[in-house]
Amino acid sequence: MKDVKKLRDSFNVTKLIRPDLEKLIPYDAHLYPEAIKLDANENPFPFPQAVAQQMAALVADELLSRYPDSDAIELRKDIAEYAGVLPEQVMAGNGSDELILNILLTFGTGGRVLITNPTFGMYKIHALIAGARPIPVPRRSDFSVDVPALVSYARKPEARVIFLCSPNNPTGNASTLEEIEGVLQQVNCLVVVDQAYLEFGGEDCTPLLNRYPNLLILRTFSKAFATAGLRVGYMLAHPDVLRQIKKVKQPYNLNSFSQAAARVVLKNKEHFKLQIQEIKEQREKVYQNLQSLEGVTSYPSVTNYILFRTNYASKTVYQGLLEKGVLIRQLGGPELPGFLRMSIGTPEENTKFLQALTEVLEQLREEKDNC
Amino acid sequence: MKDVKKLRDSFNVTKLIRPDLEKLIPYDAHLYPEAIKLDANENPFPFPQAVAQQMAALVADELLSRYPDSDAIELRKDIAEYAGVLPEQVMAGNGSDELILNILLTFGTGGRVLITNPTFGMYKIHALIAGARPIPVPRRSDFSVDVPALVSYARKPEARVIFLCSPNNPTGNASTLEEIEGVLQQVNCLVVVDQAYLEFGGEDCTPLLNRYPNLLILRTFSKAFATAGLRVGYMLAHPDVLRQIKKVKQPYNLNSFSQAAARVVLKNKEHFKLQIQEIKEQREKVYQNLQSLEGVTSYPSVTNYILFRTNYASKTVYQGLLEKGVLIRQLGGPELPGFLRMSIGTPEENTKFLQALTEVLEQLREEKDNC
Repeated sequence: MKDVKKLRDSFNVTKLIRPDLEKLIPYDAHLYPEAIKLDANENPFPFPQAVAQQMAALVADELLSRYPDSDAIELRKDIAEYAGVLPEQVMAGNGSDELILNILLTFGTGGRVLITNPTFGMYKIHALIAGARPIPVPRRSDFSVDVPALVSYARKPEARVIFLCSPNNPTGNASTLEEIEGVLQQVNCLVVVDQAYLEFGGEDCTPLLNRYPNLLILRTFSKAFATAGLRVGYMLAHPDVLRQIKKVKQPYNLNSFSQAAARVVLKNKEHFKLQIQEIKEQREKVYQNLQSLEGVTSYPSVTNYILFRTNYASKTVYQGLLEKGVLIRQLGGPELPGFLRMSIGTPEENTKFLQALTEVLEQLREEKDNC
Repeated sequence: MKDVKKLRDSFNVTKLIRPDLEKLIPYDAHLYPEAIKLDANENPFPFPQAVAQQMAALVADELLSRYPDSDAIELRKDIAEYAGVLPEQVMAGNGSDELILNILLTFGTGGRVLITNPTFGMYKIHALIAGARPIPVPRRSDFSVDVPALVSYARKPEARVIFLCSPNNPTGNASTLEEIEGVLQQVNCLVVVDQAYLEFGGEDCTPLLNRYPNLLILRTFSKAFATAGLRVGYMLAHPDVLRQIKKVKQPYNLNSFSQAAARVVLKNKEHFKLQIQEIKEQREKVYQNLQSLEGVTSYPSVTNYILFRTNYASKTVYQGLLEKGVLIRQLGGPELPGFLRMSIGTPEENTKFLQALTEVLEQLREEKDNC
């Protein structure tokens, strides 16, 4: 380490980096292995053993030693059948993150990207990385999309791509098909509708695909299908749009095991439907409980997470919960002051979360009273 | 499909795409499942069953349902030990392709990227995608790097990154440490030395890492370690360089199974050392055989492939071999007219390749004589 430190003193790498990226902060993960993990909207249930065994049986020979199928032909066929589209309308990727970056590198660079805030943070980060200018278009106070405002931004010069997350992360609400169609009809941009949480609720946009060639739908195996570890996302769009994005796609972007394992997931989708049902029931219970907690405002959700706020700083509540062994997502900032997001866990985890939150808020009230 | 065709007629997606990408041709894989596959420099041997079983045993629970470790902490420790560096000097990626793009997005965009042609084609493609200008710096006729020419290009304004593949794909020769150090001493650019084939031959550049903070080494599990299907590449560099690249890295770029399986590979590296030895012996045999073939010029290689040329068009020889069930890499173009590249296969595959090539060349000679 001594050598490395010496080098660090003598070498100024920031002289080499792109000036417009200088201020970007690298993503540093913090691991809390002891805590209940309700921060990343993962499926909390034990992975079905029978399904894992089918996946394990695939690990051999050419799946390992040969390059993956760069077109993911078999997986795309299965996804097409599941989503009710044609294989030509499907592209698979190394998680939705890769797809978002590829969309932006193809259509965004040098232009403007409209982002309906508050929403998933990676649209903005990937826009900056791709050399596009992210333009925030604030949602209304009930977190619905302000369609007239969005359309008016989209008609300004240099508007290229719109990101519209539905159901929206982290707010939990979905846009109606009518609202989305309203946007599609009035703009020439590419309209990306991120439906990562569709299996939990909200309206499916695939019926709009054949009418609006500027619609692109993002979906994923990471949430409802309990395979965040495999990194399999996909997009549904007009074949000509996908053909352009293929220009920037890495030839072997999705490894062979993830391709094959995602097919096993789809073959066993009934296993996951039961879990999805259970998560939705738990969501309603947690929501009702949060509603009845003094000093907490919670927001209706059609997803596997719930947005809520308290009268204390997000960071204070987040830290209090973490000290009690419960990890959730701290939001805050000027857009979501006092807000937090909790992912629906198992029944036991949800009970522990509600108990911990009650205790944290009591402590904070006592501290305040003592002031 | 009817609906899709109708849409294709009415929608012009090229109006939306970045103009500088319009001419890029998407990578279309062609699959020839019946042919012997000597086109992609993969490890041709059956994957060791005992190693595959250790990997399969990992497929369960949180490896599937939870997001991967975004810092690949355990894998980086193991890679550091294998490569003889510190974990802080390692970053893992979804194949070297992802790492090349991330390097270029961090340091290349808006600048010039020097590429020592003929070499691996992805440096140029990723430079274009990242919005950098690729500048070819031709190698000498023996395919060695023209260090003075490279240095003089590197001193021009806007030069940001140099790609130097050693051992070089597709030519098979390696640069000496002295040559590489000569470049590092004379330039301020980031110097990327791609050592994907290091396990087969050439000098290891890691001893230069602690002296030159502008050195970045690319390596991979795809070649010697027989796991092209898993997409695990890595880079070794100064921690400050990696910290900058982390700004553009997707948070969860490497899936959990590939992280864990790559660790299994390193635990079992002795299995692969035997295969590497066999591949090197086969390489010498094929090289001698090619040397003795009339009308063939072959080039010495320290890798797992051999570059050769004939007096016929690359495409003609490539097609002739494919008709006989042998798939190799067609090169050609103004830089490598008449050239082809074959990956070392199993002894049986190499024999079949040599037999097929002999027959193809005989046929072509006969056709020529009949003209």
